[in-house]
Amino acid sequence: MTITVDLNADMGESFGPWVMGNDAALLEVISSANVACGKHAGDPLVMAKTIAAAKVKGVAVGAHPGFDDLQGFGRRDVHLPSDELAALVQYQVGAFAAMAAGQGVPVAHLKLHGAMANMAARDQAMAEVCYRAALQVIPDLRLFVIAGTAQQRAAAALGATYSAEIFADRAYQDDATLVPRSRPGAVLHDPEEVAQRVLAMVQAGCVIAQSGARVNVPVDTICLHGDTPGAVQMAKAVRQKLSDAKILICSPQN
Amino acid sequence: MTITVDLNADMGESFGPWVMGNDAALLEVISSANVACGKHAGDPLVMAKTIAAAKVKGVAVGAHPGFDDLQGFGRRDVHLPSDELAALVQYQVGAFAAMAAGQGVPVAHLKLHGAMANMAARDQAMAEVCYRAALQVIPDLRLFVIAGTAQQRAAAALGATYSAEIFADRAYQDDATLVPRSRPGAVLHDPEEVAQRVLAMVQAGCVIAQSGARVNVPVDTICLHGDTPGAVQMAKAVRQKLSDAKILICSPQN
Amino acid sequence: MTITVDLNADMGESFGPWVMGNDAALLEVISSANVACGKHAGDPLVMAKTIAAAKVKGVAVGAHPGFDDLQGFGRRDVHLPSDELAALVQYQVGAFAAMAAGQGVPVAHLKLHGAMANMAARDQAMAEVCYRAALQVIPDLRLFVIAGTAQQRAAAALGATYSAEIFADRAYQDDATLVPRSRPGAVLHDPEEVAQRVLAMVQAGCVIAQSGARVNVPVDTICLHGDTPGAVQMAKAVRQKLSDAKILICSPQN
Amino acid sequence: MTITVDLNADMGESFGPWVMGNDAALLEVISSANVACGKHAGDPLVMAKTIAAAKVKGVAVGAHPGFDDLQGFGRRDVHLPSDELAALVQYQVGAFAAMAAGQGVPVAHLKLHGAMANMAARDQAMAEVCYRAALQVIPDLRLFVIAGTAQQRAAAALGATYSAEIFADRAYQDDATLVPRSRPGAVLHDPEEVAQRVLAMVQAGCVIAQSGARVNVPVDTICLHGDTPGAVQMAKAVRQKLSDAKILICSPQN
Repeated sequence: MTITVDLNADMGESFGPWVMGNDAALLEVISSANVACGKHAGDPLVMAKTIAAAKVKGVAVGAHPGFDDLQGFGRRDVHLPSDELAALVQYQVGAFAAMAAGQGVPVAHLKLHGAMANMAARDQAMAEVCYRAALQVIPDLRLFVIAGTAQQRAAAALGATYSAEIFADRAYQDDATLVPRSRPGAVLHDPEEVAQRVLAMVQAGCVIAQSGARVNVPVDTICLHGDTPGAVQMAKAVRQKLSDAKILICSPQN
Repeated sequence: MTITVDLNADMGESFGPWVMGNDAALLEVISSANVACGKHAGDPLVMAKTIAAAKVKGVAVGAHPGFDDLQGFGRRDVHLPSDELAALVQYQVGAFAAMAAGQGVPVAHLKLHGAMANMAARDQAMAEVCYRAALQVIPDLRLFVIAGTAQQRAAAALGATYSAEIFADRAYQDDATLVPRSRPGAVLHDPEEVAQRVLAMVQAGCVIAQSGARVNVPVDTICLHGDTPGAVQMAKAVRQKLSDAKILICSPQN
Repeated sequence: MTITVDLNADMGESFGPWVMGNDAALLEVISSANVACGKHAGDPLVMAKTIAAAKVKGVAVGAHPGFDDLQGFGRRDVHLPSDELAALVQYQVGAFAAMAAGQGVPVAHLKLHGAMANMAARDQAMAEVCYRAALQVIPDLRLFVIAGTAQQRAAAALGATYSAEIFADRAYQDDATLVPRSRPGAVLHDPEEVAQRVLAMVQAGCVIAQSGARVNVPVDTICLHGDTPGAVQMAKAVRQKLSDAKILICSPQN
Repeated sequence: MTITVDLNADMGESFGPWVMGNDAALLEVISSANVACGKHAGDPLVMAKTIAAAKVKGVAVGAHPGFDDLQGFGRRDVHLPSDELAALVQYQVGAFAAMAAGQGVPVAHLKLHGAMANMAARDQAMAEVCYRAALQVIPDLRLFVIAGTAQQRAAAALGATYSAEIFADRAYQDDATLVPRSRPGAVLHDPEEVAQRVLAMVQAGCVIAQSGARVNVPVDTICLHGDTPGAVQMAKAVRQKLSDAKILICSPQN
């Protein structure tokens, strides 16, 4: 039986004349693109072009909403009342759905961005507010959740379809949380090591902690970075390693 | 046979803590609300609340996109390449559709705002870019077009369903264009006179010029203002006059 | 010997076509206007007009910088690195100084806005970052500090000229902190009671707590609100009461 | 006698996490930096860092205000009433002056950006509005004007100190206007040719047209680009050519 896994990356983070990341190179590697929705990054034209480019490469596209904080790139915590948070997510999901419709492609998934994602990973109630708002727009929307966090519990509580995501370059603890950045080995830098570790997790079908312990958390999609030096090279290494092992790389919808 | 007509007004133009207009009062009068989509006015929460309030009153809601110019309230001309203009409209239509879905109501129509509307009323190609972008998202979307302008010709050329709109308080010339503001009688201020004139047009089924001439332009929906002194009073006078004459006031979808 | 006190209020919080507050009425009452600097509220033209209006009434004007969060009106906490916070304050102080120069009036003071002010009232290091940034632009700038807080300690630590501010309508505890809003009597609503209490504090030259205890915190300037119902009436009551008692109302620079 | 000339380039056009241009490389070449002021590009922290970097290299810094149009990078025409335009320029000049004061350097000059500059080059009244607003803040501010345009006439009419600017890579007509881009040779691409032509103009002390004619327009400062491919190489070629000819490269204030 073929094992499958999804490779995802954030995309469409340019704004007006400012370019960010290397979307063209990443589109050769990934199977799912998380497209910024115009609040923390991206603008309507960038969204349209990003979705069009993904379509050409057969890469699935999902909404990637964040806080309305362009200068801070959505990386600053913002504490919003639930109705305001729900409206903010809903707005972006709808905008994205329209841009996808404009390019003739479906909305494949939702993934929260930056500080919104991190806060929702710690706060199930907040994650539910975000997800419920999105599901009101697209009832069968697949959620990309950070594996083993409050995001995953929120998706499960809502009965939503979800894919659990791990970070290719971060080490995990036995309880499925990330090794804090202050600790040795928290972030992996060697492409071969990263690729090897990702392959092991995909073959095991679960997170493998720094200790070697198998953690009861699924691994459905692998988050690859695009905006750091060496990111594309690392992404390619992961893809190559998985392909060599006959792992099928495709988006969850396929 | 009952004559019907629609009364529309712009709504949801508040932003964050800043309030604009008197939406609650207008919702008692109109049958269609044009809801700002967060670029020239409005924000996600304002949109949600505006749509919810319209739903309670049985008022149909439509997307009211404008240029991305909050400080200028979308009243400044912006010259955009077609792909950028299309993306800007599509984005807002999608955002609005999501907020409407969140409140469980359909998207009843589209009406362009401010400078975008005025430019499209003079430039059929531009109007087509805007309308085509919106129709890609919602193929059977009803367009509110300024009667007798390039907007109407664009809607017709695209084979779209549309409603022709006149302004309650503006005088018309024999060619269906507005009497320039510099000329006497260009803007009507007396509620009774406005109401009388609107009734005459609705009963005639066409625009009646300042000269008294009947102009071969339909009158499907009447634009009422909400943000000027006396606006609500004038809106009420129009509604009362139409009701007294047994005209049925309802949105085109009903 | 004549006792003097300053009455201050936030001003210039309109944005583009959106009006906030009742600046014209408040300018009849206050001696110092805290003018929004275009990030949390205000825009360049609003600033120019606000300063011009204050000049006509002989009201001193000060910079009132806040977080770059228009939709949230600067009331949401934003955690910024020190260099970014300093730059944000410095930028606004400079912009304000230019608008004041354009109207031919001096920059009378600085007062932090909203969440920036509240965070700085709890965090002396943060307050020092803000104040130091402002003082680099205008070395002898007078700081309006919330009496008895980390703002006041920061101003003192920097050797800056400052005026201690109390809130006209809030009750104080024996340690000079505000009575929490959850407790009875935390917010005073009766104009006469507010005016009486302000007069007592001004005559005592210090904060008087809810318990009646005199607190060793000076009272140089009284913060009046402008954007709540009854705000103007309360402001007028305070002014009248002080005037009747022969207290001279003037800005600290006079 | 030593001939001197200034080399200027736009700088500080990054925004939040988005990087634009190659400021570090250009700072090795130019003598004057035009620093974006946070409306069309730049943000407070970017401004502070850009000015600090220029200071280290002994490069003079000037305010480079533009329209409040981040997404359009200030390249879209915006038609503003005079009071609003004046306020917009004044605000940015003041913000820049504060950031310069924060780094302990003077404001060396003002240069308008993008569409604001192009509109002012055609419209003397508009240029005067912009310049007058800036001069109210800094009365002896040096203006960088596009040589031979309405900008230059406005500066002269106001009795302001100004430096006339030519574009290194554009061909001129006999009336000192630029050869339209649609015509052959309008834009020069070869670094050696550009450098040779700049040197000839600097030595002649006036613009030399495509025809070879000497045009009675001074050449005080040369505009170099930073954000196009090969820009830095061309800038270096110009500097080298001028240095080899013993032309002294320095900002007008030196």
